[in-house]
Amino acid sequence: MKIVFVGAGNLATRLSLAMQRVGMQIGQVYSHTEESARQLAVQLGCPWTNDLSALQEDADLYVFSLKDTVLQEVISKVKPNSGMWVHTAGSMPMNVFEGYTRRFGVLYPLQTFSKGRNVSFDVIPFFLEANTEKEADYLKNIASALSENVRFMSSEKRRSLHLAAVFACNFTNHIYTLSYKLLENESIPADVLLPLIDETAAKIHSMSPSAAQTGPAIRYDENVINKHLAMLDDPDMKAIYQLLSRSIHKEAQNE
Amino acid sequence: MKIVFVGAGNLATRLSLAMQRVGMQIGQVYSHTEESARQLAVQLGCPWTNDLSALQEDADLYVFSLKDTVLQEVISKVKPNSGMWVHTAGSMPMNVFEGYTRRFGVLYPLQTFSKGRNVSFDVIPFFLEANTEKEADYLKNIASALSENVRFMSSEKRRSLHLAAVFACNFTNHIYTLSYKLLENESIPADVLLPLIDETAAKIHSMSPSAAQTGPAIRYDENVINKHLAMLDDPDMKAIYQLLSRSIHKEAQNE
Repeated sequence: MKIVFVGAGNLATRLSLAMQRVGMQIGQVYSHTEESARQLAVQLGCPWTNDLSALQEDADLYVFSLKDTVLQEVISKVKPNSGMWVHTAGSMPMNVFEGYTRRFGVLYPLQTFSKGRNVSFDVIPFFLEANTEKEADYLKNIASALSENVRFMSSEKRRSLHLAAVFACNFTNHIYTLSYKLLENESIPADVLLPLIDETAAKIHSMSPSAAQTGPAIRYDENVINKHLAMLDDPDMKAIYQLLSRSIHKEAQNE
Repeated sequence: MKIVFVGAGNLATRLSLAMQRVGMQIGQVYSHTEESARQLAVQLGCPWTNDLSALQEDADLYVFSLKDTVLQEVISKVKPNSGMWVHTAGSMPMNVFEGYTRRFGVLYPLQTFSKGRNVSFDVIPFFLEANTEKEADYLKNIASALSENVRFMSSEKRRSLHLAAVFACNFTNHIYTLSYKLLENESIPADVLLPLIDETAAKIHSMSPSAAQTGPAIRYDENVINKHLAMLDDPDMKAIYQLLSRSIHKEAQNE
């Protein structure tokens, strides 16, 4: 099986390397940016291009792994062929492919990817969608070679899943960034937070996050909350502190 | 060495059990609430009381592990004795003990504790403070029996550390709660998020959280952001999404 990657970002990098590791052949990498295309192609040992009209036409699978804002436009510029076309986006519907190709679907791995960081694909949940039952079987075989956690999900539900993932990952990671900044301001080494961060994530494997909640906000301890607010100079951080503390307290009262 | 616990909450529960495990004797547990006092005392196999005037007077260490709002008042009601008195609070200064006893300090373990969940104390960072060098040595020996990660820190710095911990743990956990709610609304099993949550926490062991940031907000992809905002009915969740997305983008531009 030969695969062409359209896109060479974080997700494309880790997914193509994982596919190669399980024996799939990556035939070519395309990226709008020459440097990104070459960088990934070197790792894969395959040809690259930054010209959509030079895409190989005989691949079995075309993986479109692009920013949402350019996905539709790039799809419209690729010549129809007999391969299956899939995208990897959480919030884009499957029907962006309609009218451009006959065999299409979605291959969405729910994970945070960085180019330079290896991750174990076998535990990553994959959410699939396909335009016919035959394509669904085809895609399921591919995903099952990568992960033990594969299921089908509609575009609409996947959109909600992606929104939840933005909270669980992107917002969580930004909260880490803010807490690191607070320690840097005081010249406290940030790695003292790692056992706390690890335990916070580990805890919800054995209890629900609402049962795991601790800290001053849950009982709305105004004493501590007001002292903390007075320590925050940055107006955005102050607003984040206020909003999240209120939301924690509201949640606890609803329990 | 005999220890009296004044307080029987999440932190008191896990700390007293950990102290007992390393061979320290817990002589008594006090809690304002009879039920809490008894519950912890049963686990420790020691006497309990809900009457401050019935506190044992011959202990070596008194651990005040109470809500910030009542700490000062409870301290003022305990009869002076020859033991060392410490509290376990992130945001309370050491000098709350001044005038009430001669030997005092702070024993602050940076971790999230729940009564029913065991945690490995050996990796928990402990932050100590004491009113004399002699008491500092005494307290350091106690903390070092529990953890390999022990250091001294002033009340003022500890306050900043506690603020950072509220972000890293309490706010992070609440973000998990919100993401779980989004999935529950769609009847998607929430455990599909666990590999993502685990990797988000694991990532910052090998890169800074700002380098680890991914998702639509970092490039301020208004396409996705507006679709997500339209999906959020709860005004607080909408406000949290907006504020955090803006903050992520601002942070990325400052890099």
